[in-house]
Amino acid sequence: MPRIEILCVGNELLIGKTVNTNARWLSEMIHNLGCVTARHTVVGDDVECIAGAVKEALKRRVDLLVICGGLGPTYDDKTLEGVAKALRRRLEVNQEALTQIEAKYRELFDQGVLQRFELTAASVKMATLPSKSTPLRNPIGTAPAVMLEYKSCRIFCLPGVPSELEAIFVESVAPFIKKLVGDLSVAEGWLDVRGLPESSLATILENVAAKYEDVYVKSLPRGFEGSEPKLEIYVSALRDSKFAAESLVEEVISLLTACIGEAGGSVERKYVET
Amino acid sequence: MPRIEILCVGNELLIGKTVNTNARWLSEMIHNLGCVTARHTVVGDDVECIAGAVKEALKRRVDLLVICGGLGPTYDDKTLEGVAKALRRRLEVNQEALTQIEAKYRELFDQGVLQRFELTAASVKMATLPSKSTPLRNPIGTAPAVMLEYKSCRIFCLPGVPSELEAIFVESVAPFIKKLVGDLSVAEGWLDVRGLPESSLATILENVAAKYEDVYVKSLPRGFEGSEPKLEIYVSALRDSKFAAESLVEEVISLLTACIGEAGGSVERKYVET
Repeated sequence: MPRIEILCVGNELLIGKTVNTNARWLSEMIHNLGCVTARHTVVGDDVECIAGAVKEALKRRVDLLVICGGLGPTYDDKTLEGVAKALRRRLEVNQEALTQIEAKYRELFDQGVLQRFELTAASVKMATLPSKSTPLRNPIGTAPAVMLEYKSCRIFCLPGVPSELEAIFVESVAPFIKKLVGDLSVAEGWLDVRGLPESSLATILENVAAKYEDVYVKSLPRGFEGSEPKLEIYVSALRDSKFAAESLVEEVISLLTACIGEAGGSVERKYVET
Repeated sequence: MPRIEILCVGNELLIGKTVNTNARWLSEMIHNLGCVTARHTVVGDDVECIAGAVKEALKRRVDLLVICGGLGPTYDDKTLEGVAKALRRRLEVNQEALTQIEAKYRELFDQGVLQRFELTAASVKMATLPSKSTPLRNPIGTAPAVMLEYKSCRIFCLPGVPSELEAIFVESVAPFIKKLVGDLSVAEGWLDVRGLPESSLATILENVAAKYEDVYVKSLPRGFEGSEPKLEIYVSALRDSKFAAESLVEEVISLLTACIGEAGGSVERKYVET
């Protein structure tokens, strides 16, 4: 499985003002594309911190690093400076990026959103990319996303605004992941378990997990209903066809259902929209 | 400022099933205690990944590492094994932890939640801690939290269930942070800005940030209202008294309000419950 990591940049995450929904959304998309994200990292709007996190990810030999946040025009948008520092590349005005930003401002001016049409220093900042960058069209906002190659690693820098991040991910990052992952498909299943405490379930799960080493089985305690402990079990598998992945998950779910019933617990299959 | 990092363990975060509300909550609490969290990391339920993340945090010379998740009784709860590996400490049954778990099971048995009172292998697992650990009372769930000292770093391992994590944080971690941070207090302020695009605001923010180097000023684009761009500005400061922090934030807010007004934007003070 290729190694994919997510790096989110933003002080607002580190002071607890914002919950990291971008990392969750990206991880779900990556999982749907047949891969499990290896790590999330969050650092603040600081060049040294960003560069440090990128260098550490490269040391872990990531195939794909998705960076989000810090591409905007304000002084605290420092992602590209951090990436340039980590890769030892110069920052330079990218003509294609500048053209994209200009077109976006022209559009806003034509719509009457902007009162003047001019390229400010802040616009030029958004077009100042590490050398050998490819700017990626931002269909919603102004700041282009940025794609870089560094040795065997591909880096995508996406804006932190969720609607922009999501649009660019679908348009530019997902196709790359699809190619990276190949034909793997994911299948998932959920069980609600009652009447067995998590500790009693432990042995059952351990046996099943040992039998199906590459199937992911996780139990999550969900409190009590009256005096009965409730648990959720999540099962997922990656296989080279949707059919194979689904068959495997069904097999594991059946085995779990039988074992839990034998141990005196009750099981209910839960269907979750995906 | 002391260096505090948060490490969350759990595959459910890496497949996008769960949003990382624990990291947000912890970061907000830490900020309220007068400090800014330096980094969030998320890794999966894997001993090598956990040990690697702990070792990397130690290399960054953290004063405090808050680890959450992976303390439960099931086979995929591997946090303590990972920590032991990172610190090169043996795992051993901790008598105090075992007593705590026994007391909790006794309570559940007396309440009729458990049908039998016995210490299973899974219970012993929850009491198996890296050597020189201090177990911390879990007022809600079964698995004790764990406190470790390693050189100049303090490590707290908390359960991933939010209610348990929050109770133990308040009881055992917050007092330690208070001591670590000293008498720093935080103050915050918000402004809603209309009629200025983020790029025009950039120069104003840069000047203000340059004048008040240790005040945190961040602008967040909030879309458009009709043809008018909306922005939110967040200001926060840490000082050795609540009064000093609040005065500083007020000073910055006044300056921002004046500058934005001069540039033709409109500003509204926003009050947020804290």
